[in-house]
Amino acid sequence: MLFFRQISRRSRPYSFHSWKFTSSFAASTLGIHVFHCPDEVGIVAKLSECIASRGGNIQSVDVFVPENKRVFYSRSEFVFDPARWPRVEMDNDFTKLSKLFNAQRSTVRVPDLDPKYKIAVLASKQDHCLVDLLYGWQEGKLPVDLTCVISNHERAPNTHVIRFLARHGIPYHYLPTTSGNKGEDKILDLVKNTDFLVLARYMQILSGNFLESYGKDVINIHHGLLPSFKGGSPCKQAYDAGVKLIGATSHFVTEELDAGAIIEQMVERVSHRDNLRSFVRKSENLEKQCLVKAITSYCELRVLPYEKTKTVVF
Amino acid sequence: MLFFRQISRRSRPYSFHSWKFTSSFAASTLGIHVFHCPDEVGIVAKLSECIASRGGNIQSVDVFVPENKRVFYSRSEFVFDPARWPRVEMDNDFTKLSKLFNAQRSTVRVPDLDPKYKIAVLASKQDHCLVDLLYGWQEGKLPVDLTCVISNHERAPNTHVIRFLARHGIPYHYLPTTSGNKGEDKILDLVKNTDFLVLARYMQILSGNFLESYGKDVINIHHGLLPSFKGGSPCKQAYDAGVKLIGATSHFVTEELDAGAIIEQMVERVSHRDNLRSFVRKSENLEKQCLVKAITSYCELRVLPYEKTKTVVF
Amino acid sequence: MLFFRQISRRSRPYSFHSWKFTSSFAASTLGIHVFHCPDEVGIVAKLSECIASRGGNIQSVDVFVPENKRVFYSRSEFVFDPARWPRVEMDNDFTKLSKLFNAQRSTVRVPDLDPKYKIAVLASKQDHCLVDLLYGWQEGKLPVDLTCVISNHERAPNTHVIRFLARHGIPYHYLPTTSGNKGEDKILDLVKNTDFLVLARYMQILSGNFLESYGKDVINIHHGLLPSFKGGSPCKQAYDAGVKLIGATSHFVTEELDAGAIIEQMVERVSHRDNLRSFVRKSENLEKQCLVKAITSYCELRVLPYEKTKTVVF
Amino acid sequence: MLFFRQISRRSRPYSFHSWKFTSSFAASTLGIHVFHCPDEVGIVAKLSECIASRGGNIQSVDVFVPENKRVFYSRSEFVFDPARWPRVEMDNDFTKLSKLFNAQRSTVRVPDLDPKYKIAVLASKQDHCLVDLLYGWQEGKLPVDLTCVISNHERAPNTHVIRFLARHGIPYHYLPTTSGNKGEDKILDLVKNTDFLVLARYMQILSGNFLESYGKDVINIHHGLLPSFKGGSPCKQAYDAGVKLIGATSHFVTEELDAGAIIEQMVERVSHRDNLRSFVRKSENLEKQCLVKAITSYCELRVLPYEKTKTVVF
Repeated sequence: MLFFRQISRRSRPYSFHSWKFTSSFAASTLGIHVFHCPDEVGIVAKLSECIASRGGNIQSVDVFVPENKRVFYSRSEFVFDPARWPRVEMDNDFTKLSKLFNAQRSTVRVPDLDPKYKIAVLASKQDHCLVDLLYGWQEGKLPVDLTCVISNHERAPNTHVIRFLARHGIPYHYLPTTSGNKGEDKILDLVKNTDFLVLARYMQILSGNFLESYGKDVINIHHGLLPSFKGGSPCKQAYDAGVKLIGATSHFVTEELDAGAIIEQMVERVSHRDNLRSFVRKSENLEKQCLVKAITSYCELRVLPYEKTKTVVF
Repeated sequence: MLFFRQISRRSRPYSFHSWKFTSSFAASTLGIHVFHCPDEVGIVAKLSECIASRGGNIQSVDVFVPENKRVFYSRSEFVFDPARWPRVEMDNDFTKLSKLFNAQRSTVRVPDLDPKYKIAVLASKQDHCLVDLLYGWQEGKLPVDLTCVISNHERAPNTHVIRFLARHGIPYHYLPTTSGNKGEDKILDLVKNTDFLVLARYMQILSGNFLESYGKDVINIHHGLLPSFKGGSPCKQAYDAGVKLIGATSHFVTEELDAGAIIEQMVERVSHRDNLRSFVRKSENLEKQCLVKAITSYCELRVLPYEKTKTVVF
Repeated sequence: MLFFRQISRRSRPYSFHSWKFTSSFAASTLGIHVFHCPDEVGIVAKLSECIASRGGNIQSVDVFVPENKRVFYSRSEFVFDPARWPRVEMDNDFTKLSKLFNAQRSTVRVPDLDPKYKIAVLASKQDHCLVDLLYGWQEGKLPVDLTCVISNHERAPNTHVIRFLARHGIPYHYLPTTSGNKGEDKILDLVKNTDFLVLARYMQILSGNFLESYGKDVINIHHGLLPSFKGGSPCKQAYDAGVKLIGATSHFVTEELDAGAIIEQMVERVSHRDNLRSFVRKSENLEKQCLVKAITSYCELRVLPYEKTKTVVF
Repeated sequence: MLFFRQISRRSRPYSFHSWKFTSSFAASTLGIHVFHCPDEVGIVAKLSECIASRGGNIQSVDVFVPENKRVFYSRSEFVFDPARWPRVEMDNDFTKLSKLFNAQRSTVRVPDLDPKYKIAVLASKQDHCLVDLLYGWQEGKLPVDLTCVISNHERAPNTHVIRFLARHGIPYHYLPTTSGNKGEDKILDLVKNTDFLVLARYMQILSGNFLESYGKDVINIHHGLLPSFKGGSPCKQAYDAGVKLIGATSHFVTEELDAGAIIEQMVERVSHRDNLRSFVRKSENLEKQCLVKAITSYCELRVLPYEKTKTVVF
């Protein structure tokens, strides 16, 4: 196990491009609130009244009420004055509404005041998604604290990834796996303080036990257009099938392989001129974009589970 | 001038695909409301409270507050029970809110109860956009009443367009134009009962006087990616410029040629293999889609003017 | 069975947009040649020498030699003078080359001299692909002779499709199917003079016997992104899977359902806001474009089978 | 001026993904040949005969003969045995054909034998394109030797770019410019051994004198969809114009600002929700991809000038 002591540098500035603004209101701190509860008349009214009563000014609202389902989803962005609406009271206010509407979920985030989400990245031998995440994080494009990288693949100290991690003081944990020992206990121990996990081409299946013990979300990137091409070598499967479009899918991890709810999908055109190598190359380019998009949306509270197999992505 | 008496057939059924649903609420008629006013705290609360107080159940809300502009835009979809919230009272309720917030715009539509928008289509020699609109209208995809087609190009009675119009009882007005006489008075007379106009490749410039007298919106399709290639022969301009992407733009008509606010733009890839004819063919395909998209969005109250040169398209 | 006698009107002018040009050469008739044979040194040289020796001038060549496969595919466009290179001699010349290289396929077409491909369209209840083909054919965008429409769904004489076919003198054959009798013998009889078949949402499986007896290509449109969502209700399958992209696939028909080589695929983005109806509506729009693209490419000799499951699409 | 001595590390391995293959022919080295000459009958025959006569086996050919222009462009990929067709004789053979057909251009490259193209990158303050090129080069995705980076913007030694360059032994030349002195003489001196130049958001206009003295190609990335939004602040121009699509353009540099022939263009959708910052962020993402695509295509001999304002991109 490699470990570097520069923890303070782990936290990179992230600019919430779409969120920052100079408001002419005193209220100028951004808050985000998502809500998921059984549908009934008046939810938007109560939520917006709550925000307005504290001097908060709504910048955007997105409401989704699927037909015939009697469920309600919303995401609101608002600006407020923390002096007038202290963070703790905000939590209390939304908790009251949550009880009122018997909500399954009510989450509020204030990006400028709340700690960033802590994540761990799990990867195997393939580098491209991991490296892309590291670069994006370094450039302040990923709104997360990167606590560690875990891999079942050993990397030499002079490799690009290890040197990058060393410079930034991020530990790299090499956990060899065998058919009998997936090292899940060690992983659980390493990630217990994270908010969610990212599988950046981690070629091991996490067990139902692991997922249950961890208890938080795990986001995976699959190099195929799910539900096509589940399992191993999806590019090879796609190549053999003679498809004219290849894709990548970021999704939540469930016990069943590659069957969790889809967050984002992207495609690119291929032709008879593409061989398996260019399928892989094009796919890798999609995977990187698709994974970053999913992580960013997740951190901005845009992703909500919807029924068992679906997501709402505001 | 050709004229056919089958007015009753003009009105085609339109299925508001995205709107219809079987609600388990008694309230099952869809209403749409758009609002544009100076921004202040509490607008969403008041709007949603108004809807809820009448038993209306919000299905979706979209709010846009541009930064540093102190303006507010919203669009809401809700279901309601017309027995409980009569159409006239709905108008009154929203008018009160409109006054309260000093709104520049407050429009409500109930697609199942309100008359369809009446439009006239102006076209010149090129058929593709006109024919596409006619087909789309016939198939119930355009939520409008087509009152007439006006053209500065004469068409023989056995042409496709004239026969189509005859079958459906829609008048075709041939108004020849000269450099001195654009026939705008006659057009004004023909379209005075319409809700908006559609220029489906109408190769005449409508004067500021005309636009002012008409006083309602005019939507045009331009066969170039505005603000590039304004004016005549945009495909030729694009071809000569050696572009690798061509586009089409639907926009509101203003006195200044091809300078009105853009509603929708679409592109397609071209290469050195494309000649001027294939530029035109690809462009025509874009124009049709881009115009239908703009008209449909407009009728669904999704398009709002924003500053002088922009649109909000919810 | 409906039948109309206006056969002469079946043949619509088709403008080979990408092919027409005013050559400054005497040779100004377009020829297209495709070739598929075991790879060896010198094939392009022999083919192009053959064309040049007859005064033909090559406008474009596309050669594909898949790695490690020792097979060769090419498609050439050239202009020639029919007085100097009579059509029959052209056939003889290419047949000689075909023998020389032991070709599996050598096809030549001269669009201005050769008869158009004759097709029959098979459709069930869904209209959108059939209607789109009829419109495209009427506008001269489909380079085929439409010999008849065959359906297992009865249509009343005053329906749009039947009236259209009547106006153009194209027979509509209603062949009811039962579980025991798919009417394949009748179909075989009706289509025996066609060059290929188009299944425009034909909801019956053609048997291996039928395909063998017919012996020519059958092109199908599938409303899903194959190999995902084979079989029935692919839109419903996709909706239930929570995908973020839906697609359509045009492919050759083989005995195994929805497993033939793919010709073209197209996708469109969907979100949680899309319900099953909008999945269907978006899919239909893709299906139409995807089927027309496949037919057009096929007629322009751009589509060649490649291994069992793939196509070369020049 | 910073300078580092590790020249040997400048040259990174580049995998010509689409080119490598294990041929069952003895001939297994890839050659690429492009040709541009007045059109006449028999050019393809002569070119392919030349290759075949030396045992070369054509893998792909692309021929473009624009209508009514009497010019011919081709690009061929072939495999050959260098023992049988020595590199020098290959040059001689193609030079003879070049004379025979009075060619304006005949270039041959053998990626495995020929030196990589040497380039210099010019950049100003904006980092994103420069950093993306550096990463791509480091990962072996750019088939060039990076000789130096030149900038009119000073960077501190501990910045990301300077540390990267230091690690790889690539000099960074800071050349301050004034209105009277653009430092073009110094630039000319620094780049005299390069094969082409890349402007990665270099905010200085290169003079006609410079371009003439340099005498080789210069590729620029423009953060707008040319010919729209030439000159400064194209994102601001686009934002103010209320466009619904933004784009980036890579093009050859000519004396006239942003008017050289376009190589590649890419677009992305924007809406009223996008502010100027997100216009810039989306544009930067396009710029990076568009510039890398242009450089890669150029190095693979896919880009040929066509008339004054256009390019052929095979």
